[in-house]
Amino acid sequence: MGARIGVLGGGQLGRMLALAGYPLGLEFRFLDPAAEASAGQVAELWVGDYEDGPLLERFGEGLDRVTLEFENVPLTALERLASRLPVYPPSRALAVAQDRLSEKAFFQRLGIPTPLFYPVERYADLLEGLERIGCPALLKTRRLGYDGKGQFLLREPAQAQEAWARLGGVPLILEAFVPFKRELSILGVRSARGEVAFYPLVENQHRGGILRKSLAPAPGAGALQPQAEALARRIMEALGYVGLLAVELFEVEGGLWANEMAPRVHNSGHWTIEGAETSQFENHLRAVLGWPLGSTAPRGHTAMLNLVGLRPDFSRVLGVPGAHLHWYGKVVRPGRKVGHITLRSDSPATLAERLEWLESLLAAVVPPTE
Amino acid sequence: MGARIGVLGGGQLGRMLALAGYPLGLEFRFLDPAAEASAGQVAELWVGDYEDGPLLERFGEGLDRVTLEFENVPLTALERLASRLPVYPPSRALAVAQDRLSEKAFFQRLGIPTPLFYPVERYADLLEGLERIGCPALLKTRRLGYDGKGQFLLREPAQAQEAWARLGGVPLILEAFVPFKRELSILGVRSARGEVAFYPLVENQHRGGILRKSLAPAPGAGALQPQAEALARRIMEALGYVGLLAVELFEVEGGLWANEMAPRVHNSGHWTIEGAETSQFENHLRAVLGWPLGSTAPRGHTAMLNLVGLRPDFSRVLGVPGAHLHWYGKVVRPGRKVGHITLRSDSPATLAERLEWLESLLAAVVPPTE
Repeated sequence: MGARIGVLGGGQLGRMLALAGYPLGLEFRFLDPAAEASAGQVAELWVGDYEDGPLLERFGEGLDRVTLEFENVPLTALERLASRLPVYPPSRALAVAQDRLSEKAFFQRLGIPTPLFYPVERYADLLEGLERIGCPALLKTRRLGYDGKGQFLLREPAQAQEAWARLGGVPLILEAFVPFKRELSILGVRSARGEVAFYPLVENQHRGGILRKSLAPAPGAGALQPQAEALARRIMEALGYVGLLAVELFEVEGGLWANEMAPRVHNSGHWTIEGAETSQFENHLRAVLGWPLGSTAPRGHTAMLNLVGLRPDFSRVLGVPGAHLHWYGKVVRPGRKVGHITLRSDSPATLAERLEWLESLLAAVVPPTE
Repeated sequence: MGARIGVLGGGQLGRMLALAGYPLGLEFRFLDPAAEASAGQVAELWVGDYEDGPLLERFGEGLDRVTLEFENVPLTALERLASRLPVYPPSRALAVAQDRLSEKAFFQRLGIPTPLFYPVERYADLLEGLERIGCPALLKTRRLGYDGKGQFLLREPAQAQEAWARLGGVPLILEAFVPFKRELSILGVRSARGEVAFYPLVENQHRGGILRKSLAPAPGAGALQPQAEALARRIMEALGYVGLLAVELFEVEGGLWANEMAPRVHNSGHWTIEGAETSQFENHLRAVLGWPLGSTAPRGHTAMLNLVGLRPDFSRVLGVPGAHLHWYGKVVRPGRKVGHITLRSDSPATLAERLEWLESLLAAVVPPTE
């Protein structure tokens, strides 16, 4: 039979991993604390705590590889599994990515430009940080932030108390707000045999801290591709990385700065399912298995729209030529990513026209209230 | 939640239907007599007999649509389900397709060129048929033939007794052997709302009665596309067809002849997963749900190779650029379709070169013995 892959986390990323892996003859077993985890609709789901040692022992039995789709898995869980079978990406990649301070320090150590930052444990640190960095600045929890949660934007130093009241009490980091032109991401993948490949840069548009739209390849970003690949390669090699890695970037005057990284398949890579020769999900699995990586070449021009807290009429969405629906089978709640739509075209002009159609259609959907 | 689709049959076609349907938010329930049916690895599988009425009643409960991936489902099963919920394709399409004699007569009635044929019930019919049709001719069982099974090629009338000894005793049909240039197929899809779309013609190469290779779009077949579409459209409209329909064709001097049809997704359409904007599996589901059909436009040039009775080294297959593996999770047995590989390229020359590489790689695989 095919290889058996254990996956820590059972959200939509895991679901799409399984759907990409079945054609490769792979079998999947997911672990997630939530019984309604999205991957459970398409694969075997174990419901349990990542800290439950005996459960992890049993979970690992009969598996050939373990990977993850959620980067805040406790390192102890990874290490316990890694003592029995190959676990990718390596736990040191998670150790770095789970803590914004280690992450920024790591970028700095590798000579990768990143916003000024200052560790904040006490209120005094915040004041000192604001003096060094100036405003605007972002105060963030070092751990467990996602989709803009656990952040406070200080437009002026007078907001220090308010920011502290909101976030203080856990380890924080103060970061300079970067006057970026746009946000990009680079998706790299490195296999267990050391083969490396990169997708073209993606342009990402956020609203309310949540990714709403990606354009791939990022228009007019060809000249930035070598710099992006070089920094992602440096990160992957420094970590002995295996699997797909996403690095979120700011495009600024003069080049690219690294904002943060995700040691897993990434929302800004969903376009690759239809928009690239090989999807990020398949390439992550190929990497983890030590198989040759698939071509990362784009197929035409692609836009990806997240469905956040709303369920459109599927039939109307599919009426837009070139639209591909991905529904995650989740209950719709405000602010929750419940699906995405990929729009692909061979021509940028046709893509722009259809994107307008699709966006106006989505804008008319009435979201459910809390 | 999404619509629930019941599928009669749980082989690889069903498996690929489910994998295409999950992103559309669909849920699946399969019925198959075999507990090891391939779709059961990725979806809910009920093991049971298609003739088990009470089981069918329970199977239909809570479903929104029923479809099939195996055309030899008893019509009574379809009709029993159709009295409770929409079942597509309609049972009259199956009635025609399940019997080679009705099928040929149906083509004839629609004015679609098809080989000369003669019904054979008794040995005397065979002799009479051979006199009318001449040799070479094919004697076939009217029902339940697939992959070249239930056929006998008569090169000369003297083989009548041998052919009769092999196949006699069930209703048969004698067909003229058509000196075709090549075999093609046209895949059409018609939605519950009457929308119709066609994929480009596919060239199919068989060996031992089993499809081995498809090339899509069929090289140099552009001029035949209108005739192929017209005949497939006539068939679909005559049957009030809903879903994907494959018509196998002979290219002869002067045009196309219909050989047979399959009222389901088809092996010669597997290339559409990577080689077309929308796969045959997704379009079948869209059709059954009355949703808009997706674009059937090809993306570059594609070859599909069936894996028949052998399991190649996956890693070596995936080392061929543009190769996409589809493994069905079945036990490998001689003559059994256990997977396929799609090879895609933007350039026909590159495709040809890589196809040679892939074929030589597959030729070196030692198949297991019976």
